[in-house]
Amino acid sequence: MSAEASARSRLVVRLDDLRVYCQRLLVAAGLPTADAELVADSLTDAEARGIGSHGVLRTRIYAERLRGGMLDPTATPVLVRDHAGGCLLDAGNAIGHVGARAGVDLAVERAKERAAAVVGVRNSNHCGTLAYFVRRATARQLVVLAASNAPPTMVYYGGRTRAVGTNPLAIGVPNPDGPPLVMDMATSATARGKIILAGQLGTSIPPDWAVDEAGRPTSDPESALRGSVLPFAGPKGSGLAMMIDLLSGGLLAGVTGDEIGDMYDDWTRPQRVSHFFLAIDPDAFLGRDAFLSLVAGFVHRAHGLPPAEGFDQVLLPGEVEETARRSAERDGVLLADTVVRDLEALSRELGDPADLPAVVLPSPSNGAC
Amino acid sequence: MSAEASARSRLVVRLDDLRVYCQRLLVAAGLPTADAELVADSLTDAEARGIGSHGVLRTRIYAERLRGGMLDPTATPVLVRDHAGGCLLDAGNAIGHVGARAGVDLAVERAKERAAAVVGVRNSNHCGTLAYFVRRATARQLVVLAASNAPPTMVYYGGRTRAVGTNPLAIGVPNPDGPPLVMDMATSATARGKIILAGQLGTSIPPDWAVDEAGRPTSDPESALRGSVLPFAGPKGSGLAMMIDLLSGGLLAGVTGDEIGDMYDDWTRPQRVSHFFLAIDPDAFLGRDAFLSLVAGFVHRAHGLPPAEGFDQVLLPGEVEETARRSAERDGVLLADTVVRDLEALSRELGDPADLPAVVLPSPSNGAC
Repeated sequence: MSAEASARSRLVVRLDDLRVYCQRLLVAAGLPTADAELVADSLTDAEARGIGSHGVLRTRIYAERLRGGMLDPTATPVLVRDHAGGCLLDAGNAIGHVGARAGVDLAVERAKERAAAVVGVRNSNHCGTLAYFVRRATARQLVVLAASNAPPTMVYYGGRTRAVGTNPLAIGVPNPDGPPLVMDMATSATARGKIILAGQLGTSIPPDWAVDEAGRPTSDPESALRGSVLPFAGPKGSGLAMMIDLLSGGLLAGVTGDEIGDMYDDWTRPQRVSHFFLAIDPDAFLGRDAFLSLVAGFVHRAHGLPPAEGFDQVLLPGEVEETARRSAERDGVLLADTVVRDLEALSRELGDPADLPAVVLPSPSNGAC
Repeated sequence: MSAEASARSRLVVRLDDLRVYCQRLLVAAGLPTADAELVADSLTDAEARGIGSHGVLRTRIYAERLRGGMLDPTATPVLVRDHAGGCLLDAGNAIGHVGARAGVDLAVERAKERAAAVVGVRNSNHCGTLAYFVRRATARQLVVLAASNAPPTMVYYGGRTRAVGTNPLAIGVPNPDGPPLVMDMATSATARGKIILAGQLGTSIPPDWAVDEAGRPTSDPESALRGSVLPFAGPKGSGLAMMIDLLSGGLLAGVTGDEIGDMYDDWTRPQRVSHFFLAIDPDAFLGRDAFLSLVAGFVHRAHGLPPAEGFDQVLLPGEVEETARRSAERDGVLLADTVVRDLEALSRELGDPADLPAVVLPSPSNGAC
């Protein structure tokens, strides 16, 4: 490795710089400034929280889909069903973040008026992490449940071919004494990125992560990548993924399974992803103050539980990510050299070339600042 | 084993006889006839579907809690919050089945009027399988989500002491061409009954089922039973169990974690279980006929997927149980000798002694009919 490559591989970027840079790329790709700000904020937020799989490396695919006409940068979600307990928005093939933001914000507004509200969003696209949108509702002191379907990259339990997305489920609860509790889980046993990494490292993988092309459990990363990722906990993750496909894609849009377009591989049609939101106002049930007080006590008691061997503390959903975010706000985020180079290459391809401002923080290997 | 015991261990009971017998026991224990019919139907239904853990063996504990004053046989759920999008019922410490039935039926009624409705039930008790109540909604062509908290019998991920229930999540979808799709899953890696069985058989258990008293994964059933069952899929099942506790117990009642009374071990207080229901009318979203047609196609496609090695077919949530139920409707259900003797002993304790009518079906060992 050259000295330059070594220095680049320690590149640290401030979150504000990263957000502004990604926004600029998305504007260059055709997204209106305000929407580009939303998407860039979501990408930077995922990066800060240690969820690199949903971080700034996704900027390229969004830009390419915008330029390839696979996303409509001018679309505005439209209310197409409006009932007392539930509504449906048509996102008009907007980038998924615009669809998901409209969905959760309408769910919040209606739940404030009516105690609880379901809002569906159809004709949307990949929207990044659900957690990002869940936190829009918890910031308004609401409880929220969110789910989304995705193109099929997973087998069902007992199947051998990819048939269902790793359809995520997220639940958020406001917390008066700290960050909200936010669970955001894919229905797969693991992220495909972890299998790729094992292949690069030459290590084996647990047999419950993936199957080979014949649908047999495999410990070999290469066989797993030719095969398919497994749902978590066998029939449980499989059943939940299936139900989320029906609850979002089926109920809201009539579009499920392989009718969902793959963001990376399918350049012939929109994705037609659906998002499902349920927002609930605690003030209409236990009462807002009583509920917030309960959550504070709940968190306190969970933190005080005796940890298992090998653990420091019982952690609540979202706490690992929140710790990473605080560190990233203070120190910036460490990006892989390949990710930075790809963003800078994208800036040139988009005709608005710029370097990503980097701050090389002190490190044991070079001591620079 | 005596010839009599051997014959008894092959005892087959018709579902109708079993239902009537359990109802009679519950009436003798103080439950009104109509409520006893509901509970007996739920118990017999679970038994028929192969879910013996929630089957007729529970009759005794319900009867004992009724006689011990831990359940109020006269309670009727009362509407205590009534909003456009959500309602709250107080079950008044009724047996859980009465609380859950009131909850799901109100959710169905409101969803038919308003597209979707959240209904919470507080001050309830153990209600058997959620699937039983979910099917009340799917029978009305609604999509439904249900969750309930339970007394703490599980560790959180990273914890060593029991802190949360195996809080189940259920989702149901109507199916025009067959039984509804019903997912009903505990958030634990396994049922405690399977660990007890491994102990009786002298076999080891997978290390991701349970921890010992120090919170260490264990393959030894005895250590596991002194310790605690684990959530499914580590932080995923743990986070979901926690969120269900907050979404049901916290949001609806202000009662979570070890504030939920144990049905077997705690005779000093009501359980204070909460149930959460969300019903959605497909007619308000995709349209009823279009949705039902979509589900039929979805099921057809799933059944046509190539199975993995060792599997005959991809099965949908609830199909294994439905096959068992059809067999039980036709041939009756095979009960363990100990379960039958316990029910008959209970009938004597309740002052209404009766034998459980048994039909000994043809079997290889005795050929009787």
